[in-house]
Amino acid sequence: VAPIVVDAMGGDHAPDEIVMGAIDAERKGIEVVLAGDEGRLRPLLEAQGADLPIAHASQVIGMADDPARALREKKDSSISVAARLVAARTAGGLVSAGSTGAAMAAAAFLIGRLPGVARPAIASFFPGRKVVLDSGANLACRADHLVQFAIMGAALAQSHFDAVPPRVGLVNIGEEAGKGRDLEKEAYDLIAGLDGIDFVGNVEGRDLARNTADVFVTDGFTGNVVLKTAEGVSGMVVALARELMDHPDHREEVHGLMPVFDRLFEQVDPEGVGGAHLLGTEGVVVIAHGSSSRIAISNAIGLAAEGVGDGLVDKISAGLAAAAPIAG
Amino acid sequence: VAPIVVDAMGGDHAPDEIVMGAIDAERKGIEVVLAGDEGRLRPLLEAQGADLPIAHASQVIGMADDPARALREKKDSSISVAARLVAARTAGGLVSAGSTGAAMAAAAFLIGRLPGVARPAIASFFPGRKVVLDSGANLACRADHLVQFAIMGAALAQSHFDAVPPRVGLVNIGEEAGKGRDLEKEAYDLIAGLDGIDFVGNVEGRDLARNTADVFVTDGFTGNVVLKTAEGVSGMVVALARELMDHPDHREEVHGLMPVFDRLFEQVDPEGVGGAHLLGTEGVVVIAHGSSSRIAISNAIGLAAEGVGDGLVDKISAGLAAAAPIAG
Repeated sequence: VAPIVVDAMGGDHAPDEIVMGAIDAERKGIEVVLAGDEGRLRPLLEAQGADLPIAHASQVIGMADDPARALREKKDSSISVAARLVAARTAGGLVSAGSTGAAMAAAAFLIGRLPGVARPAIASFFPGRKVVLDSGANLACRADHLVQFAIMGAALAQSHFDAVPPRVGLVNIGEEAGKGRDLEKEAYDLIAGLDGIDFVGNVEGRDLARNTADVFVTDGFTGNVVLKTAEGVSGMVVALARELMDHPDHREEVHGLMPVFDRLFEQVDPEGVGGAHLLGTEGVVVIAHGSSSRIAISNAIGLAAEGVGDGLVDKISAGLAAAAPIAG
Repeated sequence: VAPIVVDAMGGDHAPDEIVMGAIDAERKGIEVVLAGDEGRLRPLLEAQGADLPIAHASQVIGMADDPARALREKKDSSISVAARLVAARTAGGLVSAGSTGAAMAAAAFLIGRLPGVARPAIASFFPGRKVVLDSGANLACRADHLVQFAIMGAALAQSHFDAVPPRVGLVNIGEEAGKGRDLEKEAYDLIAGLDGIDFVGNVEGRDLARNTADVFVTDGFTGNVVLKTAEGVSGMVVALARELMDHPDHREEVHGLMPVFDRLFEQVDPEGVGGAHLLGTEGVVVIAHGSSSRIAISNAIGLAAEGVGDGLVDKISAGLAAAAPIAG
């Protein structure tokens, strides 16, 4: 399996936490390359007694930079260097906790889109073996984009969850066919015509808490709002639980219930998965949260390595080719 | 205060639960009129020793009917009779747990829109003193529609939460100005120009769990998805809590923690509010969930009575008039 290259300079806690996460992943047996400023990275590695290969990059694209412009102007940025390693097949996949826009631009322009892909999409995992896409790459979508998301999401669900055939739902405001905007009405019929997936029809936000679908297909605006709402409500419940755990009157009861709280926290833990896949490019690209800790980064690298090992990109290619008459 | 008319024939558990909820509200001191089939309603009232006035209606609009067409063809439907009582000022407000489409059509065509209102909107409450609109009436919106939603939602927050000035947020995929689709970019500048509200800028789904805004403005597709996602995640947590409560190993701990679970259930209880306001019509209209129990119906009637008592419609009118140069 080709190594995973990590943008060591991107993220709120870069490079320290990124390097620590990379070391952790390497110790779990994943081959990792760091892209970034060698002068800063080498001492961090040495302090941990680690010796990962470094692809030197003298520049960094920040959160405030315009992604496409920064990509053109900062040719030696860490995300550009990382993406070129994937383009050259030196690395099999890429992980970045830096600017999502820059990672998307680097993926599109340096790694390249798969043949026939109109819009790469961000596929985010949700607790309970579910994936939501697009979750933010394309705010306005056409029906044929949603069809491609369905195919790409199905390939990911098959690879990551062993869901065969993957159950695909269209995020909508009601379960009945014929609901929604023109976008959903058009996409419904097109997705229903796809082979190799189990189209379960329309799904609603509440299906995220049920076992009705593996893949939730929607435009990037809606997907992003769905994920942040779920995050918000989970956070509210976690806050309530933490308040309770700190309550002196309930110390004993809480102690007895710790396994349950652990299960709750695990279910809503954003670090558990570590990142979201950017699907539709000629290499595995995992986008980690800007606030990623070493644990999140290590898990994101694991996710990328799994995608490379499973041949995720080839599976997506095959799915798109098979559906070309509909989704092209 | 003018009475509240209740569509006694609409809802999954109509007319029994509707009648029980109406009796309950009447016993709490709210004047209530039932619209529906007198031959069916009178015995239900008598069985409870209650004597509410009935506005007889010989027809019912069902969930499967096309709303606009059914409204034209079933002129003696319970929702039509109820809406005409509001139009005639015989009733101050209306509650229906029947077809939302039929209630919206009856409100628009029989009660009428307020001057200058382009699109009445459904304003749904979310735990923690928050209101989300539009939550399903208008799937595709223009920026000026969102401006009107901001004004109407602000009037509701002021009336229902005593929020002065109401804090209004625009649902978006990031907090920074300039985020979102063209819709959000245009609406942002227009809402920022409104007087009498505290525009807090963009808000995300996770703000539903924070104390950052009272009013969440968005199109009806997004609002509906947000509410159902929140409902789904809450439901997941409640399911976990119930599973725990039923666990024989934890009986004592759970007993000690019952007050906390009660608080949790209360926070996510869909019956607590009872219904959503349809804002922008010449009368108070509260839309209750189709599955409403007597408790939900009683609370929905209370919500409508509160709106009538507070002069909610006049407040919305005044807000729209003041902002006419922007929102008209």
